[in-house]
Formats: sequence, C-alpha cells, structure tokens
Amino acid sequence: MSPHLEDLFSFLRFASVSTEPQHKTDVERCAHWLGQKLTAIGLTAQVHPTDGHPIVVARNQHVPGGRTVMIYGHYDVQPVDPLNEWASAPFEPEIRDGVIYGRGTTDNKGQILAHVLGVGEAMKEKGELPLNLILLIEGEEEIGSKHLEEFLQTHREELKCDVIAVSDTGMVAKGVPTFTYGLRGLAAVELRVSGPSSDLHSGIYGGTIANPATALAKLLASLHTKDGNIQIEGFYADVAPLEKWERDAWATLPLKDADVAALTGVPELFGEKGYTALERIWARPTAEVNGIWGGFQGAGSKTVIPREAFAKLTFRLVPNQNPKDIVQKIHAHLKSHCPAGVKLEIHDGHSAEAYATDPHSNFGKAAQRALKTAFPGGEVALIREGGSIPIVNTFRKVLGVETLLLGLALPDCRAHAPNENFPVENFEAGIRLNHALLNELAE
Amino acid sequence: MSPHLEDLFSFLRFASVSTEPQHKTDVERCAHWLGQKLTAIGLTAQVHPTDGHPIVVARNQHVPGGRTVMIYGHYDVQPVDPLNEWASAPFEPEIRDGVIYGRGTTDNKGQILAHVLGVGEAMKEKGELPLNLILLIEGEEEIGSKHLEEFLQTHREELKCDVIAVSDTGMVAKGVPTFTYGLRGLAAVELRVSGPSSDLHSGIYGGTIANPATALAKLLASLHTKDGNIQIEGFYADVAPLEKWERDAWATLPLKDADVAALTGVPELFGEKGYTALERIWARPTAEVNGIWGGFQGAGSKTVIPREAFAKLTFRLVPNQNPKDIVQKIHAHLKSHCPAGVKLEIHDGHSAEAYATDPHSNFGKAAQRALKTAFPGGEVALIREGGSIPIVNTFRKVLGVETLLLGLALPDCRAHAPNENFPVENFEAGIRLNHALLNELAE
Repeated sequence: MSPHLEDLFSFLRFASVSTEPQHKTDVERCAHWLGQKLTAIGLTAQVHPTDGHPIVVARNQHVPGGRTVMIYGHYDVQPVDPLNEWASAPFEPEIRDGVIYGRGTTDNKGQILAHVLGVGEAMKEKGELPLNLILLIEGEEEIGSKHLEEFLQTHREELKCDVIAVSDTGMVAKGVPTFTYGLRGLAAVELRVSGPSSDLHSGIYGGTIANPATALAKLLASLHTKDGNIQIEGFYADVAPLEKWERDAWATLPLKDADVAALTGVPELFGEKGYTALERIWARPTAEVNGIWGGFQGAGSKTVIPREAFAKLTFRLVPNQNPKDIVQKIHAHLKSHCPAGVKLEIHDGHSAEAYATDPHSNFGKAAQRALKTAFPGGEVALIREGGSIPIVNTFRKVLGVETLLLGLALPDCRAHAPNENFPVENFEAGIRLNHALLNELAE
Repeated sequence: MSPHLEDLFSFLRFASVSTEPQHKTDVERCAHWLGQKLTAIGLTAQVHPTDGHPIVVARNQHVPGGRTVMIYGHYDVQPVDPLNEWASAPFEPEIRDGVIYGRGTTDNKGQILAHVLGVGEAMKEKGELPLNLILLIEGEEEIGSKHLEEFLQTHREELKCDVIAVSDTGMVAKGVPTFTYGLRGLAAVELRVSGPSSDLHSGIYGGTIANPATALAKLLASLHTKDGNIQIEGFYADVAPLEKWERDAWATLPLKDADVAALTGVPELFGEKGYTALERIWARPTAEVNGIWGGFQGAGSKTVIPREAFAKLTFRLVPNQNPKDIVQKIHAHLKSHCPAGVKLEIHDGHSAEAYATDPHSNFGKAAQRALKTAFPGGEVALIREGGSIPIVNTFRKVLGVETLLLGLALPDCRAHAPNENFPVENFEAGIRLNHALLNELAE
C-alpha cells in the first residue's frame, strides 16, 4: 500500500462520530493525529480546543505579497448504524476493486486528506507553496459546526483570506470534473408526542385514549400532499425559481432520472411534479423523516399503547428561504395539526441557510481550470447540490469571502449510509487537484 | 412472608416471556416448577411438551358421579420493556404498601397460583375435592395460544368437562366482585414499508424519492378519522350494537370516564363519539399502533432517508366481527392507501374472535355466588372486557363448554406495562374464591 493510502487508512480508523457522546475521545484523538500529520508535512499546526470538538488549523510560512487561500474540511463523521448492513467494518477500511470502503472515506476524510497530502507533495518538491495557505479542519460539521462561527469571530484576523476552497461536494459522474455553485440549507426539529403516563394494555384501554404513535403518524402525514408537495402554509413563499440556463445545463448532464432511480434502488422516483430528479434535489426544498420510533420493536407482539412516540425531521431549504422563518412555519403547522388527546413537544435542532455563489467569477474560473487539470479530457459540469454545508454562509458573513466547492464524491459514495466508499482513483485525483488549484489561485 | 407468598415469589422470578426466543429456557423452567408445585399439593401433574412452550395439566383423583370443572390459566408473561420505567426489577418481585410488583403478578401468575393454592388448601383440609378438577395452565397465552387448540383436539376425551373457569380478567374496582361475560377479539398485522436499497443521505437524494417513514405515517394516518373512528371500509359492518340493559348497568359502575382518565394519566380521553369510556373499551372495536420504528433513533441527528420503516398493529374486535374477514378488509385498505414510490409488505399475526356468554346461566349464577363469598358485602358487577382471551372460543368449539370469567385484576394493575402489580389482598381473595367456586359448582 502507498504511504498516502496508509495515511488515509490511519485517519479512517478513528471512530470520530461527532454526534454520539460515547465517541468524544475518538474525535479528540483523531484531531491530534491530524495535527501531527500537518506538522510532519512542514506546516505549523495547532489543535484548538472548543466547548465541543477541537478545530485543527495549519499554515505555511508567510509568502510576502502572495494571495491567501483557505482550504476547509472536517474530520468528524456520521454515525454508522444500521451496522449490520455494512459489508466490512465501518472503521476498518478495506479496498475492494479499487474502491475504499469505510465511514468517512468520502465524507470528508478522503477528500480533505487528499488536499493535505497534495500540500505535502508540493512542499517536498519545491520546499514552499506559491501562496499563503490556511488549512481549517473542524470536528463538528456533522452536528452543524456548532463552535466554528465563534472561532472564526475570535480568530478573524489570523484567518483573513481571499478565497476558500472546500472538497465536500460531489462529482456528477465518474471522471466528470464538477464545480458546485449552490447548496441547500437545513432546518432540524425533533418531535415527541405523548399521552398516557405509562405504556398501556391495548385491550384494557384501547379505544378510549389517543394513541401517541397514531397521533405522530397523523402529524407526519400532514406534512405532504399525496403527490409529495409540502403542505406547510407559506413554506414555498420565498423559494427562488430555477433559472432557464440552469435547467438547460442540468438537462445535458450524464445523470438522468433513470440513473438516480438506479443509484437509490427505489421501485420508482417520487416527488414534486414538473421537475426532473436533479431539479428536485438541487433546487427544491424538502421535509424528510430521518427517524421515527415508539412502542414495541422486538420480535413477536406486545399489545401496548405506547406512552410516547418520536420523530426526527430535517427540512432542506433553498435560496431564498430563511431558516428562522421556516422553523416558525413548521411549529405553527405542527401545533395546528396536532391531533386531540396528546401532548406535542418540538425541539429545534441546527439550521442553516442555502448557499449560492457566482460560478463565473475569476476565482470560480480558476477553480474550474484546476478541475480540468485534475480530470483531463472532461468539460466541467456546473451544478448545485442537495446537501448542506452551513459553514459556507458563515465564511461569507464573518470573513467576507466566497467559497469554491470542488468535490470528489461520486453519486454512489453512500455518504451517511452503510458501505460509504471512495475510489482510490478519486483520492489520487484529489492530490493532483490540490496541486493545480494552488497554482491557479496563486496567479 | 407466608408460604403462599413465597410460592408466588418463586413463580414470579421466572422470566417466562413467551414472545422472546431468548427466554425459551426460562419458560420451560417455569413450566417444570409449576408441575412440581401441583404434584406437591397432591394432584397428578404432567408437563406436556409442544412445538412451542409446554402445557401443564393436573387433576385430582376421580370423584365418581361428580361434575368436572376445568380451571385454565397461563404461566407465560409479556416482555418487560421499557425496562427503565420499572421502579423495581420486573423479575425480582417486591411488596410495597401491601401490593406485589413484578411482571406477571396480575397477568396471570398471581391469579392462577391463587387457584392452585386454593386447591391445595382444600386438599389439605379434607383430603379431597367435591368434584373432578382439571387444571390446564399453558405457556403461550401472550402469543395467541398457538399450540393449545391442537392439544385440546388431541386430548379432548381426557379434558372433557362441564364448565371452565378462568381468572385472567379484571375487577371493576377494588373490592367489587366482577363477573365478565364478554371479551374483545384480536387481529394482528405487522407492516414493512421499504424504498431505497440502503439508507440514503437526505441532502443528496431528498425530494426525489418517497421516504418510507413518511409513507408509513400516511398509511397509519389513514386508519382513523380525526375523531378516532376507523376508516377501513366495512370495518363496522358486523359490529353488534350495545344492548340497552348493558349501557344502563355499566352506567352505574364505580368506574367513570374521569376514573379512566386518571388511571391512564392522559391529558384527555379520546375516541368514538357517543359512547362512554367503558362502552368504547368493552363493546367497540379498535385499531392500535403497538410499535413503530425506522431510521435513526440515537442522540443528535443523522440526516438519512431510512430504507425501511415498520409498524406493529393490533385490532380489537367485538361480537360479531369475523377476524378473517376483518384481516381481509385491513389488507384491502392498506393496499389501496399505500403511497406511491414504496413497497408494502403485510405480515399477519395471530387473530381471535370476540367472546360472549350468558351471565344468567346456572353456572354463571354459581360463579357469581362464589364471587360474593370471596368478596363479602359487594354486589357482583356484570361487565365485558376490552382484552382478548382467544382460547375461550376454542374451548367452546373443541370441548363444547362455556367459560366463566372471574378475574382479580384491578384497573391500575399495569398488565403488559412497567410496574405491573397485584395486591396481596386480591391474591388471598383468589384463594378464598377457588374454595367457594369449587363448592358452588359441585352443587
């Protein structure tokens, strides 16, 4: 195995699941491993503690008169369940047919480490970089970058830069260099519906009290029409319509509705009528149940009325929806649709605005040239994405700079799901991309 | 502690959860303990293996010319979760303020053991019983008495009897002797709604495929109107209306709507309009979600679209609904209401007809006299019950006899729920009841 892959495997072996308290030490150990790696390639690195997980910052020796570029990524990962659906252990990476499998391979360890190793290669070759580089790698991206904004505020002078580059987005297809100019935002809520003071025998009491699981189902069912449109009053009021050029450009991409159906394995696609799959994912808002539970889940049957039932929901937002306004509308809808006989509690989670930048700016064009160098032969696809990277709006707000999104994730990378993966080929292209990017941005 | 209570505690310590495969040995050990106890009091006992859990049968020495009475009960219990809601360990019984706490205290170990010990007392006193007694105690009541019908068929000659008595029902209030002349039936189904071949990132795919948890919620929401009436076509078609004398009698019972609300701890009662709480529980059918699950249930958030979501449902049935017919109607409803973009699987569980017997028969009157002796000073309440004891219909079908239901469970016994309990006083009354019952039925 190459030393680069060995580094990646070491990085992947940390179970740095930021969302699960039991992994706090793993997250911390991962941050320190990263700090040591950054030091080893010749950068000055610091692991900054926060009230949550540490933030790792590294920089090269100052290049007078040079531009300053920040590369941002994260070393935390999503939880691994359902564990039994993994073909190999999530934190014991494995290469099968040229593809690396493991939690974080794509999102984001594989991608951010490609940048780090690219920088290492350049330093080894020339002893220096053509510009001032800041690497900012956090450990709370999967939980809404809770402490990063405060960190940026406190360190805004040291973190001043001209532009930021992020590899945490996708490629439209294998080998197709992809520049992402928009991301969806997010609003998360958790619901608890409760009724009796304890689980009840469904024979002894069934029929005379509201069942919290049924009430929760009614609430969730009220979110969408049967065609999949969201029924929350005012939810679509501020949604920016798709531009004609975007629809035309996206229609030419090698990712059709049939491909999306095949990638997901669904019996048929489903969603708002009048849009292609890509349009729905990249430019339309959603309301999704991420988890639901209540009552008896074991083998066999247990004839109870559960005392409570829960659901975790996230809403993906698009320009120009305001997360605060949307969360208010969600609350209003849930309260007015809550069935009789139960109590509803709503706990707000993290939220973030959608992001959009101009793909035709100078930095945008430089990034696209770097992408063509890293993936020779392909035209650069200009896309938006359905996921959320809330921090890019914070970068704009606090540091006043735009973010270039040059991701390396493939459509079948299974980020956030079992069997997450990243081709060795993309990892190597990422190292080349970093090299080309630093050169293009230096000019 | 009295020897009777010591026996009960030994009986309760077996984790004889019939529904959970990991407790198979506990169920078996419990059956053998019971067999030994029955032998020790002077009966001839046998533990019959089945393809499921054993059936324990005991009888006295034949009394020529005497009537034959069978007493039926079960030694299996419900699962214990949610475990963290128990004030004391479910299988380490404990007496607090004269009340025994533990799984099975009421349902049904406490009640059936009272009969066993009552028989033991009578044998000790007189050396014999006034009639022929058969004790039939099974280990699969909580999973639909799967192997009992076959056992009755195979042993129908040995099990011939004139009447059957069961203590697995409730008392309308503390100290009020209660004779139950009707029970609800049951139909169980489990639903699996599936879509993508794996959990998906809700950013990368959200908006373009159906969410199985949302689809399941829509299915469950379709079962009831917002007033709690069941919307399955034809569901109420065969429901026997309440008789005027029943409504009048029930209206005088010391268990009012406010009592039911207090017992359950709900913010308000909920259900079909035009009926009291007791009428809804005892004489109207239901559709209840016993459990629901899908996607991420851990701490924090995980932005996935779950690949599948599940629900366990049971429907309580009343005279004259036919379980087979109802199950067909449930299937038809679910299939026709299944949202687009997902796959629905329905797995049928056990089912049972409702039961009704004549409270004014000779045996019925004898049972009521025994109840008055065991609980002196009270008028016997004539009620139905909301729970199901499927085997009573099988007794009628296979053995051709009626079943007398003389239960000792109190409204706050928490059967099937955490902190199940049984007052020491009711346990002792049960021993007296057995004595009176055998005398009354012998005459």
